[in-house]
Amino acid sequence: MPASFTPRRVAIDLGARSYEILIGRKLLDDPAAYLGVPASPSAAIVTNTTVAPLYAERLAHALAAKHRDIRVIELDDGEEFKDWRSLDRIYHALLAARADRRTVLYALGGGVVGDMAGFAAATYMRGVPFVQVPTTLLAQVDSSVGGKTAINHARGKNMVGAFHQPVRVIADLDTLDTLPQREVAAGLAEVIKYGPIADEAFFRWIERNVGALVARDKEALAHAVARSCEIKADVVAQDEREEGLRAILNFGHTFGHAIEAALGYGRWLHGEAVGCGMVMAADLSARLGLVASAYVERLTRLIAEAGLPIHAPAVDPDALIELMRIDKKSQAGEIRFVVIEGEGRASVRPAPDALVREVIGAHSA
Amino acid sequence: MPASFTPRRVAIDLGARSYEILIGRKLLDDPAAYLGVPASPSAAIVTNTTVAPLYAERLAHALAAKHRDIRVIELDDGEEFKDWRSLDRIYHALLAARADRRTVLYALGGGVVGDMAGFAAATYMRGVPFVQVPTTLLAQVDSSVGGKTAINHARGKNMVGAFHQPVRVIADLDTLDTLPQREVAAGLAEVIKYGPIADEAFFRWIERNVGALVARDKEALAHAVARSCEIKADVVAQDEREEGLRAILNFGHTFGHAIEAALGYGRWLHGEAVGCGMVMAADLSARLGLVASAYVERLTRLIAEAGLPIHAPAVDPDALIELMRIDKKSQAGEIRFVVIEGEGRASVRPAPDALVREVIGAHSA
Repeated sequence: MPASFTPRRVAIDLGARSYEILIGRKLLDDPAAYLGVPASPSAAIVTNTTVAPLYAERLAHALAAKHRDIRVIELDDGEEFKDWRSLDRIYHALLAARADRRTVLYALGGGVVGDMAGFAAATYMRGVPFVQVPTTLLAQVDSSVGGKTAINHARGKNMVGAFHQPVRVIADLDTLDTLPQREVAAGLAEVIKYGPIADEAFFRWIERNVGALVARDKEALAHAVARSCEIKADVVAQDEREEGLRAILNFGHTFGHAIEAALGYGRWLHGEAVGCGMVMAADLSARLGLVASAYVERLTRLIAEAGLPIHAPAVDPDALIELMRIDKKSQAGEIRFVVIEGEGRASVRPAPDALVREVIGAHSA
Repeated sequence: MPASFTPRRVAIDLGARSYEILIGRKLLDDPAAYLGVPASPSAAIVTNTTVAPLYAERLAHALAAKHRDIRVIELDDGEEFKDWRSLDRIYHALLAARADRRTVLYALGGGVVGDMAGFAAATYMRGVPFVQVPTTLLAQVDSSVGGKTAINHARGKNMVGAFHQPVRVIADLDTLDTLPQREVAAGLAEVIKYGPIADEAFFRWIERNVGALVARDKEALAHAVARSCEIKADVVAQDEREEGLRAILNFGHTFGHAIEAALGYGRWLHGEAVGCGMVMAADLSARLGLVASAYVERLTRLIAEAGLPIHAPAVDPDALIELMRIDKKSQAGEIRFVVIEGEGRASVRPAPDALVREVIGAHSA
């Protein structure tokens, strides 16, 4: 590894539930990365059929001194399996292994694995410790902070879940080497998000380094992941249960979720929909008179450079608005948008349907 | 109502999650009982087919000024329905009604309804406010404090759940008038429990008043419910996440759960199994040299006077021990018993299998 590489540690301060995010290289194999995680007799690694052959054995090996009995629970890979059936497979496997309240769950994989393993950890015997080992860029920047866990319901995404904090997050940047390029771009959508909503200097840093990030330069990735986690932690610390401020983290997500739902889940990656959704949300901010159109162009250019879509396929604006109305962030049917109020500042507000229709029209084919 | 009746309020101090338990008469119909509960546009009353015809309309009427849209979600009645299917019916009903994160869930019924509505409230959109309106004595003394919610899993009782505190508990003693006598006795098992583990004076008060309690005297019930909630609150405040001290609340439950499982769920009520389990746990305490045999006789007499069984049907002691070993309170296969260490003092410890076998033999037919 190049001499210039600096590992990062981000401390998440949540009182009794505080934990650390370790960001670096060769962490997955390193028993030292797991120091401080409870050394219980048993552990389970929840992963999926894609990630298991790459990393499960290496993780189990690193944990061998800590846990006598380590089970690997392999789920099918894909958002469409983020449901009760997969969750119940985890419960069955834990009960069959006589897992108890001290059994540590390791989530090894991307956001779907993290959400399901996290929800299983939140609810198995009313809560067991869990460790996130995110192997996608999206999961490293997005799931590492905030304690959100969930499964999908037939009637909506992430409708059933819990807040449950991990005891440790191990973000090994080397695991990103096996990631398809499209998923690197999707992860960058969540990185880019933190600029407009909270940190103009970080926005400019991303603009200068987007090429290195797309090329998976580890030093650039380490800074991007660490700074994203820090900003998210600042916001979450002020609003752990998502009652107010935290909503700004959904910049681009109101449009993005609706695009995902309209296209049918699985056609676009979540990060791709968020990329396009940020273009729309920035444009809405401009149409509300909050930012200049030059700002929208600047953000649009960066999103395109990251390899993300800036136009949605042809969608019916009214259908999209209806989808946004049933999003779980809406309140009594009123859609709430995260808008940019100035460089590095965001807020949440409703917007006239007519304006939203214009925005959708301007950014869909 | 007699002039002597005094309503009670028990304050549960949990910082930002503090709430009050109101114990009294004619509370169900009284809008004043619900003051302070969030006045959101929508609410759902989760109840069952037995309780709904008795009380659902009256509760909805009392809440009419607080919530514009009130849905009643009626579940099948019985422990055998405390599963994922019933839980999913709640999610479906909430999503169909476009319930959002401010929708208040009311649990109207006994422990099963409270556990399921509570778990639904803990997990629907990662948590919505909920109000307990317990209509059984067991639920009034047991579910009012502690924030435990759960469903059963094919492989074990209460294996999937969460800690989720209510925003208010309304214990209307008049709702106990419709309770079968057997369920009054089952509720008294949990009341009696608090004497041996924490309060010798309360133990003596129950001994003097057990006749009035069995006859559902409201003044006696008010004191019994209030004092039980106070003691439980003291214990839980010291150990909200059930990591240590709180385990003493399971006095009689290690034996009790195993008896329930051995007989097949539904044959004995939970409280009946706990009653018999307390006899066994007290006897185990005596055989460990912690209390005199006179103490065991005294507790056994009280349990019998409450109308509870003091002998289990013929069970295989080894099968019972095996069932205890897989209980979720066991640690790495070691069974932990709550034992009485002296008047009003309990602790948790393992015990030799041979002694446990003797105890089971002495108290089963």
